[in-house]
Amino acid sequence: MTTIQDVARLANVSVSSVSNVLNGRVDRMRKDTFIRVEEAISKLNYRPSHAARQLKTGRIPILGLLVPTAANPSFGQLAVAMENFAQERYGYRVLLCNTYRDKQLESRMLDDLIDFGVRAVVVVSSLSDERHIEAAIDRGLAVISFDLPVEPDALIRNDHVLADNRLAGRLAAQHLIEHGHKRLAFLTPRGQTMSRRHKVEGFLAAVNDAGAGVSAQVIESKTASKFGDSELGALGFESAEQILLMKNRPTGVATVNDMTAIGLMAGIRHLGLSVPDDVSIVGIDDLSISAYIWPPLTSVSMPVTEMAQKMVDRAIQHINTPGLAAKEIIFAPQLVNRQSVAIPPATSKPIQGTDIPRS
Amino acid sequence: MTTIQDVARLANVSVSSVSNVLNGRVDRMRKDTFIRVEEAISKLNYRPSHAARQLKTGRIPILGLLVPTAANPSFGQLAVAMENFAQERYGYRVLLCNTYRDKQLESRMLDDLIDFGVRAVVVVSSLSDERHIEAAIDRGLAVISFDLPVEPDALIRNDHVLADNRLAGRLAAQHLIEHGHKRLAFLTPRGQTMSRRHKVEGFLAAVNDAGAGVSAQVIESKTASKFGDSELGALGFESAEQILLMKNRPTGVATVNDMTAIGLMAGIRHLGLSVPDDVSIVGIDDLSISAYIWPPLTSVSMPVTEMAQKMVDRAIQHINTPGLAAKEIIFAPQLVNRQSVAIPPATSKPIQGTDIPRS
Repeated sequence: MTTIQDVARLANVSVSSVSNVLNGRVDRMRKDTFIRVEEAISKLNYRPSHAARQLKTGRIPILGLLVPTAANPSFGQLAVAMENFAQERYGYRVLLCNTYRDKQLESRMLDDLIDFGVRAVVVVSSLSDERHIEAAIDRGLAVISFDLPVEPDALIRNDHVLADNRLAGRLAAQHLIEHGHKRLAFLTPRGQTMSRRHKVEGFLAAVNDAGAGVSAQVIESKTASKFGDSELGALGFESAEQILLMKNRPTGVATVNDMTAIGLMAGIRHLGLSVPDDVSIVGIDDLSISAYIWPPLTSVSMPVTEMAQKMVDRAIQHINTPGLAAKEIIFAPQLVNRQSVAIPPATSKPIQGTDIPRS
Repeated sequence: MTTIQDVARLANVSVSSVSNVLNGRVDRMRKDTFIRVEEAISKLNYRPSHAARQLKTGRIPILGLLVPTAANPSFGQLAVAMENFAQERYGYRVLLCNTYRDKQLESRMLDDLIDFGVRAVVVVSSLSDERHIEAAIDRGLAVISFDLPVEPDALIRNDHVLADNRLAGRLAAQHLIEHGHKRLAFLTPRGQTMSRRHKVEGFLAAVNDAGAGVSAQVIESKTASKFGDSELGALGFESAEQILLMKNRPTGVATVNDMTAIGLMAGIRHLGLSVPDDVSIVGIDDLSISAYIWPPLTSVSMPVTEMAQKMVDRAIQHINTPGLAAKEIIFAPQLVNRQSVAIPPATSKPIQGTDIPRS
């Protein structure tokens, strides 16, 4: 494609001279030089790239989005929702980066994005240590933390947009308790993130409020998950045996997200039991596939589209109004009642040995 | 963040002068000017942005990736695979754009990407009309078409990287035939794409090769799908009744992809029948969730990681070697044998009326 160098070459001038013409800095330019440049621009049909505009303004109309992995459908969904709105409302695109929750990677990506001229970034990492984020903010980048609650009594340095994860945990527990479950459990991968912690807190608080007779345990999967996303199906599957062999087997299990629930459901069946007859399950996320597994998964839905739009709006506001006061903006989740929860069984059916090969 | 304008202001020179210093064009510069600029750069800790490098070279180290929607896990997986490799091998990032298979959107995105300085793009669209792609190629953009076979006897203007979709269809059919199925079907959303067409062709060719006694029909879902991706679960679900009520009900069904298979499986159960006892199902894609649904889904796996890496390699080669000859590069899929296929039932069990509410 035609570059500024091509124009310079054709007009036999320096790139700086072409740039001066493009930007109207011509008061000291010789007239014949000016004409040669204009003719070259015209002849080559040269369109100044965003790069030129970027050099002038320091900006490129792109928002960054750092996610653990785009292969996780929740994050893919978020990316799409953000991009739709950013494009339609502001003419901005979204640059999606996969971080694997690795701080060094996140740090390097933020530097790159700043260098590209990206002025605002949404970060989905839920890591509580945000020092590398603060370094980027100091360099002038607007950062919006997604799904990361603000520590109590902490200063809010940048926007935090999240769903009320405590309420999500609470809704899951309440749904099980309303169906008569007395022995509950919450299944989560090993490895704390703030959003997981809040889900657990809300879950346990609801159990506590239900009074004597209702108890709950938190079950951390035996295997640690590298970045807690795409292997969640496997984690859920592998946790089934652990759960079913427990002395006081829980009859109602909530999981940190739908992928874990789906894996758990498969694991339970693999061992000869059934959902919801033997074990009830509630997920969190409400992925679109959750309606089509069997039984359709009861889950807690997060308002991803609304949160995505709010983050895009805030990102643009921060770009246009440096020094805008940071806020924590919390959205309410909702229970989606499907078919994976029933009243608890009268007795605990033992698991069966199985010679069905697991794929 | 510090911009070139900040440096210019502090040194009391023009932006062009700063640029000249950064790029070593100093032979005509006054010494005191040069020193002032150097001191300002040092004092402000100024890092030349990619924008400056971009203005010089016309490039930004980003590859574009146009997908119908990032909410579809297949495309999310592709984006991650590309980004991992592009970052690690070449230091490039990936800008993910959602196109909804809309030609106007694709066209506008390609223009934007060119303006940003992106020099190579992978396009996943499977639209057979590529005129807007050709316009972008004419502007100097390297375009790699993913999952789009080259028309027979057509000139190859740009790289096409794809899995052998005919072989995918064939493998699915053969697997069903080997299990004794005589009445097969292939379920696809309404709306032809080249890759769907090839899957169907391969499927029907294998049925033909199996000889008399084995027949197949192609079933197009009643509802058209807007862009054939995220509503596939619903399409599969809704097609169950249509299939089960057919006069010569197929006993073995292959679907265009896993999401459709998962929906179909749920729809079949919703009507009181079971997989694989009443109907066997084969998907295509081998999504990671397919191992955790029930029964685990037999599917045809596409070598996404290898294809992603090949596309990144080719993209960089095209950037570095303008005029590189275009190629069609085809990868072989593989059957992943799980548990959703069994021998056909002796009789067709009638569907049951149901009052289970569908969520």
